[in-house]
Amino acid sequence: MNIKLKFRPAEYKNSIITIIDQTRLPEKLVYHHIRDYRTLGQAIKRLEVRGAPLLGIVSAWGIHLGLKDFAAHRSFNQFYSEFKKVAGLLKSTRPTAVNLFYAIDRMERVVKQNRHRSIKEIKQLLKEESDYIYQEDLQTGLTIGRFGANLIKGGSHILTHCNAGGLATSGLGTALACMFVAKSMRKKFHVWVDETRPLLQGARLTTWELAKWKIQHTLLCDNMAAFAMKEKKINLIIVGADRIVKNGDTANKIGTYNLAVLAYYHRIPFYVAAPSTTFDLNILTGKGVPIEERGREEVIKGFGRMTAPEDVCTWTPAFDVTPSCLITGFITEKGILKPPFSQSFKKIK
Amino acid sequence: MNIKLKFRPAEYKNSIITIIDQTRLPEKLVYHHIRDYRTLGQAIKRLEVRGAPLLGIVSAWGIHLGLKDFAAHRSFNQFYSEFKKVAGLLKSTRPTAVNLFYAIDRMERVVKQNRHRSIKEIKQLLKEESDYIYQEDLQTGLTIGRFGANLIKGGSHILTHCNAGGLATSGLGTALACMFVAKSMRKKFHVWVDETRPLLQGARLTTWELAKWKIQHTLLCDNMAAFAMKEKKINLIIVGADRIVKNGDTANKIGTYNLAVLAYYHRIPFYVAAPSTTFDLNILTGKGVPIEERGREEVIKGFGRMTAPEDVCTWTPAFDVTPSCLITGFITEKGILKPPFSQSFKKIK
Repeated sequence: MNIKLKFRPAEYKNSIITIIDQTRLPEKLVYHHIRDYRTLGQAIKRLEVRGAPLLGIVSAWGIHLGLKDFAAHRSFNQFYSEFKKVAGLLKSTRPTAVNLFYAIDRMERVVKQNRHRSIKEIKQLLKEESDYIYQEDLQTGLTIGRFGANLIKGGSHILTHCNAGGLATSGLGTALACMFVAKSMRKKFHVWVDETRPLLQGARLTTWELAKWKIQHTLLCDNMAAFAMKEKKINLIIVGADRIVKNGDTANKIGTYNLAVLAYYHRIPFYVAAPSTTFDLNILTGKGVPIEERGREEVIKGFGRMTAPEDVCTWTPAFDVTPSCLITGFITEKGILKPPFSQSFKKIK
Repeated sequence: MNIKLKFRPAEYKNSIITIIDQTRLPEKLVYHHIRDYRTLGQAIKRLEVRGAPLLGIVSAWGIHLGLKDFAAHRSFNQFYSEFKKVAGLLKSTRPTAVNLFYAIDRMERVVKQNRHRSIKEIKQLLKEESDYIYQEDLQTGLTIGRFGANLIKGGSHILTHCNAGGLATSGLGTALACMFVAKSMRKKFHVWVDETRPLLQGARLTTWELAKWKIQHTLLCDNMAAFAMKEKKINLIIVGADRIVKNGDTANKIGTYNLAVLAYYHRIPFYVAAPSTTFDLNILTGKGVPIEERGREEVIKGFGRMTAPEDVCTWTPAFDVTPSCLITGFITEKGILKPPFSQSFKKIK
C-alpha cells in the first residue's frame, strides 16, 4: 500500500529544524525555522511542536543541532559533557511523554558506544541516528495504521480525543493513522472529534487533518461524548498515548480516562494506538508516571479572553492515567496487543 | 435560619425588568434594563438571563410587561389574544427548561379564571402572580438548601456542573443553595467546579458566586472530572436540572450525563437539586424531552477567536438526559426524593 503524507509536521535540513507552529492552527499554517536547541526547548514548552512520537523525533534532531558546531579538536569528555547539557535542557521541557526520553537515551548510547571515534564521526553518527528515528516513526505509523484499519468497518462511528495524527508524529500518526489507512482502503466511516480542553488539539488539529484526508467528521465538546455514545451509535474509540507502563496503565491527554470509563459503561471497544517507543516497561503501574501540570492561564484565559475570575484556584493536569482494565487493546507496530498484557507485552522491545 | 442574598440576578420594578447580563460575567457586572417583552425574549435567547427557575420568573414578569399597557376598555377576548401573542413569543425562546412553560401556564390560568373581571383587575392579578412566583422561588431555594446541606459533611469534596446557583434562580439557587446553607452552618468543605463547555457557566458564574460566599473551590475543565474523582477524593456530586420527567430521567446542561456515568463507576452519590416546578410529570421518560441544539459558533469561536476550521461539522446539544437509574436522589423543597421514584414523586404537585 502506498500512502502519501498530506504535510510534514517537522523536518531537519541544512542545520535547521523546520516545524509547523501547532499553536497557530487551524487559523494559519505558520512554519518556524529553528537554528539552536534552546529555541527548540522553548518551542516544545510552548507546544508549538507536540505529540509524544514527534517530541522524540525533534529532540533527537535537537541533540544534533546542539552539538554540530562543537569544535572537532576538543576531547570526548568535553563533548560528552556538552551532550549532557543539551540533553538535560531538552529533557526538562515536558515530563510525561516517554518518547522524548527514549530518543535522547538512544542518542546517548550512540555517543557512549563510539567514544573511540573522532568528534566529527560521532556527530555524523548522531545525525544518522536522529534520521533513523524519524524514518522508523514513518514506517511505524504505517504499520500501526494497517493493524488498526482492520478494526474499522464500513459504517463505523469512531470517537477520538486530542490529536494522535500526523501532527503528533512524523506525519501519519497513531490513532489517526488507522483512519487514514482505512480511508485509503476506501472504507466509509465517520469520526467524532473531542475538542479536548484546555488547548483544543482535537478542535484545532485533528479536524484539520481529517479534512485534509477528506474523512467525514463531527466536532463536539468533551462533555458531550457521553451523550454521543448513548445517542449516536459510537462503536469504536481510538486514542493515542504518552506513556504506557508495564501493567498496561496508560498516560494520555487529560480526558482519556473519562472516555475510558464512558466506553466501559457503554460497552464500546477502547483502543490505544502507540508505537513501542511509547511503552515504558521500567515503570510497573500508572502511579509511577509523572503527570505534568500546566499553567492556569490555559484554563482561565486560553483564548485571549478571561473566562473565569482572575484569582480563581485551578487544577490543570495535562494528562491522566487510564487503568489497563479499561483498555480493550493496544494497536502497535508489532500487532494488536490484547489482555493479558503481561503476556502480550512480551512483543515490545 | 437567616440567609442574606449576595446579589439579585433580576428584579421587576416600575415596569422595568432589570437583569444582570450573565454573558458579561465574570469580567463585568453589567445590568440591563428591559422595558418590553420582545427585548426580554432576545435576552433569554442570548443567555443574558438563564437558569431554569429564573427563566420561569422573568417570563412571568415578561407576560405582565407585555400586557400592562393593554387598553382597559378593550374586550377580554382581545386581551386574551394579546396574552397568547406575548406568551407565544416567550415560549419560543428556549425549549428545554420546563419552568418557563410552567410559569407562563400559571399566568394563563390567572387570565382564564378571571375573565369576568376588568382588564385592569386582571393586569393587577398577573402582576401579583408573577411576584408570587418570584417569592416562592426564594423560599424554595432556602428549603432546598436546608435539605441539601444535610448531605454535606465537614471535609466534603463536592463536584458541581454548570451554574445552579443564585444566578439561575431568584438569588439563592438549587445545587449551590445546599452549599450556601452548609456554609452558613459553618461547615468546612471544598467545591470542584466543572468549567462547562461550551459557554463556561461553571468557570464564569459558579466560581463568581462561590467567591462571593467565600466557599473554597477549584475550577477544572470538564474532561478532568473523571481524573479528579479518582485522585481527589470527590465524595458528593450535586447538579441542577432543566426538566425532570415522570420516571426520574433528568434533562440538564450537557455534560451532566457524563458526570452521572462517572459517579456510578466511582460510587459517588449523584444528587439533582431542583424545585418541584422543574418536574414535568406529563412526560413519561427522558426520550420525550426536547433537547435544544445551539449555534455552532459557541463551539468553534466561543472565546472570540476561531478554535476550529471554519467549515467544520459540529454537534451542539445544550442539554443531555441522565437516566434515573444513575441518580441517587432529588433534593427538592418537599424533601429529598429517593428511589423508587414512582413512589417518592407522589410528593410533587
